[in-house]
Amino acid sequence: MSLDPNPLAVALGDPAGIGPEILAKAWDARGRYDLAPFFAVGDRRSIEAVWNGPIDLITSPDEAADCFDKALPLLQIEDTGPIVPGEPDLAGARCALDSLELASGLARSPMVGGLVTGPVAKAQLYAIGFAHPGQTEFVAERCGIASANAVMMLIGPTLRAVPITTHMPLREVSDFVTVDLIVAKARATDRGLARNFGIERPRIAIAGFNPHAGEQGAIGREEIDLILPAIEILRAEGIDVVGPLAADTMFHASARTQYDCALCLYHDQALIPLKTLHFDEGVNMTLGLPIVRTAPDHGTAFAIAGQNKANPGAMIAAIALAAEAARNRLIYA
Amino acid sequence: MSLDPNPLAVALGDPAGIGPEILAKAWDARGRYDLAPFFAVGDRRSIEAVWNGPIDLITSPDEAADCFDKALPLLQIEDTGPIVPGEPDLAGARCALDSLELASGLARSPMVGGLVTGPVAKAQLYAIGFAHPGQTEFVAERCGIASANAVMMLIGPTLRAVPITTHMPLREVSDFVTVDLIVAKARATDRGLARNFGIERPRIAIAGFNPHAGEQGAIGREEIDLILPAIEILRAEGIDVVGPLAADTMFHASARTQYDCALCLYHDQALIPLKTLHFDEGVNMTLGLPIVRTAPDHGTAFAIAGQNKANPGAMIAAIALAAEAARNRLIYA
Repeated sequence: MSLDPNPLAVALGDPAGIGPEILAKAWDARGRYDLAPFFAVGDRRSIEAVWNGPIDLITSPDEAADCFDKALPLLQIEDTGPIVPGEPDLAGARCALDSLELASGLARSPMVGGLVTGPVAKAQLYAIGFAHPGQTEFVAERCGIASANAVMMLIGPTLRAVPITTHMPLREVSDFVTVDLIVAKARATDRGLARNFGIERPRIAIAGFNPHAGEQGAIGREEIDLILPAIEILRAEGIDVVGPLAADTMFHASARTQYDCALCLYHDQALIPLKTLHFDEGVNMTLGLPIVRTAPDHGTAFAIAGQNKANPGAMIAAIALAAEAARNRLIYA
Repeated sequence: MSLDPNPLAVALGDPAGIGPEILAKAWDARGRYDLAPFFAVGDRRSIEAVWNGPIDLITSPDEAADCFDKALPLLQIEDTGPIVPGEPDLAGARCALDSLELASGLARSPMVGGLVTGPVAKAQLYAIGFAHPGQTEFVAERCGIASANAVMMLIGPTLRAVPITTHMPLREVSDFVTVDLIVAKARATDRGLARNFGIERPRIAIAGFNPHAGEQGAIGREEIDLILPAIEILRAEGIDVVGPLAADTMFHASARTQYDCALCLYHDQALIPLKTLHFDEGVNMTLGLPIVRTAPDHGTAFAIAGQNKANPGAMIAAIALAAEAARNRLIYA
């Protein structure tokens, strides 16, 4: 059996954002980073507006691998409006949504190794009737998975982190989090590390919520009431989990070698270390789906679109990680 | 006028902790780091138990500069008990407190350039009747400053951060913080950056409390209710302050060049980036005192005391920063 995954489908995201530029730059860098074949899903004009390289129009994913060496394969989305980099509009949002829909659908077929999604503008998507909080929830629904079971993992070269809560006021986190929620996220993390990264016995570290992880209840009780009971349940299931660790001393270089993923109770607890260390290389991977899905962990950056300033690092990392996950699923699935 | 500060007084901290070892190692490294003269305050036996270098007993700070090149100057604390590295006891706590008391007193005299405090064991200090939360509050009281006005700044080679709240349950932070508190801490930070670092017009960045700094109220209101009003007051006073910034994107390398100090609403918001980046070099400086005071930002590490394993990086940095602050006060005071 070949360990080469089938080509990855990359939705270009908003055509007026930096998605087309960073995907084209990723294709330029395919040799240097030894990237597995991928193809773009979107409007070729959004790429042509910012890049002079060769594009090969394809009509089916199985054509992508053959032409990938010589040109960027692209599945064209029809009937989009005029495209001006840096000037988003509703026609662009429709193009982004059509690209996402087609790429997600294709990613469910065995011809496609996985899905990478470029950055979209949520406000524009909501304006055309998009009813999901973000692309993750959309993809989960298309896969028949409740979005609560789709777990966001943030990945940099030296750190993986899962935030248990995301875009929620910080003062509400402590009342929202339950033992069951921590257990569910840890289970999905454990399984996701095995399936996507080939880690046989993943080591998970859970961050404390309070300063110094609460000092045995002297500085807050979330560790005692929520985290320790969750750890007990997880250990009884054979999951290798430690914690609650003091959040400030668990992210330095030697501490990071002690676990495969940090489980964090709130958004910034995961995102501060990740973006402090790996600002230009952060990848968002969705665990808990039947398909592989990654995305560069940044926005559309309309302000610099069309100026050849966009850093493709996170897109390159998203493609590389999706291919790695697809390979691991061929081995371990 | 000479710009050499007078010698720094270094309280050794708990004699059974790593304080004596890292101070001796700092003296060994005085040439490499071009450290200004300092003298130890503590029991010489705590150093002799872990170090073979030369010690010169002095009876007054003004003897320190002359002998500093050839030996570690030390002011002896008498009547302490037996000292075993790694085995703290109440006699050691008394020795640590006597050292702190003497060093703090000396630091108020013009013969001494500033105060550096080694790590102590709080539980042991409480057991002998120490009634302050920590050394910072003790020093503040000895200086006649209300401890609420003594502001902790954490310093690494590429980041300064002030946590507005410290050892408080995270769920209580949002109700505890007020506009006035933010304003008071920002003023002390502004003044402290000028006096201790010689920064003429300090740039202060205030972190948002919620994910993405609340997205204009969509994810929490602390930014609107607390931070923005504080910024308005501070700007009216001529203080250069920006914010609220999304906490996850304000600590990467290029973002850190945009401000001189980050003002953070809770402990881990300041400590996660600081310790992620600069785990072995973190220094705690107290602003708002009439004297210079720094400390290595770590504990007694009893578990490795007496094994020649302790990293002196933070102590060296604490001494270097205290000397720099003392020099700047000579210039700008």
